[in-house]
Amino acid sequence: MNVAVDAMGGDKAPEVVVQGAVEVADALGIHVTLVGDREAISDVLCSYSPADHITVHHCEDVVGMDESPLKAVRQKNDASIMVAFDLVKKGDADAVVSAGNSGATLAAGILTLGRMKGVDRPAIAGILPGEKGPVILIDVGANVDCRPTYLFQFGVMANAFASSCLGMENPKIGLLSIGEEGGKGNEQVRLARKLLEKSPLNFVGNVEGRDIFSGDVEIIVCDGFVGNVALKLSEGMAKAVTRMLKMGLTGTLSGRAALLFGRRSFENIRRKLDYEEYGGAPLLGINGVGIICHGGSSSRAIKNAIKMAALYVSNRVLEKMTFQFNNFMAKEVGA
Amino acid sequence: MNVAVDAMGGDKAPEVVVQGAVEVADALGIHVTLVGDREAISDVLCSYSPADHITVHHCEDVVGMDESPLKAVRQKNDASIMVAFDLVKKGDADAVVSAGNSGATLAAGILTLGRMKGVDRPAIAGILPGEKGPVILIDVGANVDCRPTYLFQFGVMANAFASSCLGMENPKIGLLSIGEEGGKGNEQVRLARKLLEKSPLNFVGNVEGRDIFSGDVEIIVCDGFVGNVALKLSEGMAKAVTRMLKMGLTGTLSGRAALLFGRRSFENIRRKLDYEEYGGAPLLGINGVGIICHGGSSSRAIKNAIKMAALYVSNRVLEKMTFQFNNFMAKEVGA
Repeated sequence: MNVAVDAMGGDKAPEVVVQGAVEVADALGIHVTLVGDREAISDVLCSYSPADHITVHHCEDVVGMDESPLKAVRQKNDASIMVAFDLVKKGDADAVVSAGNSGATLAAGILTLGRMKGVDRPAIAGILPGEKGPVILIDVGANVDCRPTYLFQFGVMANAFASSCLGMENPKIGLLSIGEEGGKGNEQVRLARKLLEKSPLNFVGNVEGRDIFSGDVEIIVCDGFVGNVALKLSEGMAKAVTRMLKMGLTGTLSGRAALLFGRRSFENIRRKLDYEEYGGAPLLGINGVGIICHGGSSSRAIKNAIKMAALYVSNRVLEKMTFQFNNFMAKEVGA
Repeated sequence: MNVAVDAMGGDKAPEVVVQGAVEVADALGIHVTLVGDREAISDVLCSYSPADHITVHHCEDVVGMDESPLKAVRQKNDASIMVAFDLVKKGDADAVVSAGNSGATLAAGILTLGRMKGVDRPAIAGILPGEKGPVILIDVGANVDCRPTYLFQFGVMANAFASSCLGMENPKIGLLSIGEEGGKGNEQVRLARKLLEKSPLNFVGNVEGRDIFSGDVEIIVCDGFVGNVALKLSEGMAKAVTRMLKMGLTGTLSGRAALLFGRRSFENIRRKLDYEEYGGAPLLGINGVGIICHGGSSSRAIKNAIKMAALYVSNRVLEKMTFQFNNFMAKEVGA
């Protein structure tokens, strides 16, 4: 198992990226190839005890967070994200993890590894903490305008990922709308609902914004515009609430006493609002494994993303997804 | 001042609606006309001491929560929501408050009072609690598919409402998208951005999901699909966190001690997550005042919605909105 990590991607790269990689390599014996500027990476690496499972693959360039993704991946063949996916293409690595420009990661993944057969649009599957357990929200930003068939395909891909990588058996799938009745929502949602209803998926119908956090449904399908807004909103709220609790309670003596007495409850809430548990969002629908992390990822998020990439590979999610995809699509859409 | 309240609308109608009306009529001397089944309303009213400021206006029918809004308002002339708006049209009431079928409230408002001159699509302005203060999210469900000009008009209407009703001076307006750069988002957002940039509004550019709770921007413009998802998601999370805190802490002795020591912090968080502070969402762009409440509203939410309706009327928001609207639209769009 070898995970290629874009060492130059992220607001705090290469520091936190290298730190996360070292931690997971030491703890789980996952081999990590750090892709990026050798000197910059070595400067960080030298502050850790030498890890057996870390290799550095040098490259000159990097795609900046604000660069136009498509333009960047076309012009910068030697950018860390391009080189990382190239390692997978050549068989030198099994997966890519990046906290860099997410549009560029998406574009590099599609351009280098290609789309899975039958997939019109690869999508990013956000794994959000929910009150009753994790919720997969797909798409969270790859496709702002979606045809009904894309939404249907998102459901099929997420279903395969959820069952083979997250251990969700026959996960409940909901379609994000603004009312539970079939007639509610926009045109795209009404048509996607019909495709999902006919499928062998465990489709429970429309769900609403409140279901994203409840965890009653394991997979929620939506276009990348709505999904991205929902992901960032819930992440922002979770962080704000955690911060408000912490700041409010640590500032006074009585607050610190409250923290002490209520630590089990606070820990429980902190865990339920933890957006770093899965570290990254898998890019589904490409011929390979790519995990997209938040630009502001901590070393813990990077570590968890690398763990997820390794699980994705060892559980042979790609093969299972291809199988389910072909199976469902052939049966239901007559493709 | 007379506010017509749809006594039959809401999951817990007429009980909580009547209770909220009595409370606000007693406390603030706002006259409330309860519209609905006289017998059902009287049954609830009799458990309160007779209030001087309460009148009952009998009608036979009601629009159910699951009925098709357009069909219902066309066929049920004697439904409470239709009668309530009719009282405003005839000059017998100044505003309508309803926790009933929100689609029907929207349709009845537009059908009975008509759209404001120059407004293509009336919209629902959700007032959400934010970390730094209230945030107006517009539209939260009236229009699932929006042209760029509709989004621009939402910004103009919300600006007038915010300044004249919520005391926000020159409020900052953001356009909800999935990245801050101008090129990000879908076609509709990119075009709306150009209209907003040219306008005299205090437009700050694109904002993202995380800005909905931060409160850095006072008004956030989006289509009704995204807005509805965001409203319900944040409401759901706020309720879940409040519930988790309460349940976690009240269940044990040490938890109750924590509650005692940390009460100031908890109260602070509870207030920042309070979705009933404004009680309802104003329907902007009709020739009159309509406040749409959550179907599950408590009596406190109803009370606060009636207070907002009264403020809307006494601050002459409608006139100011009409003035600003004509002014901005004439200047900027050449309408």
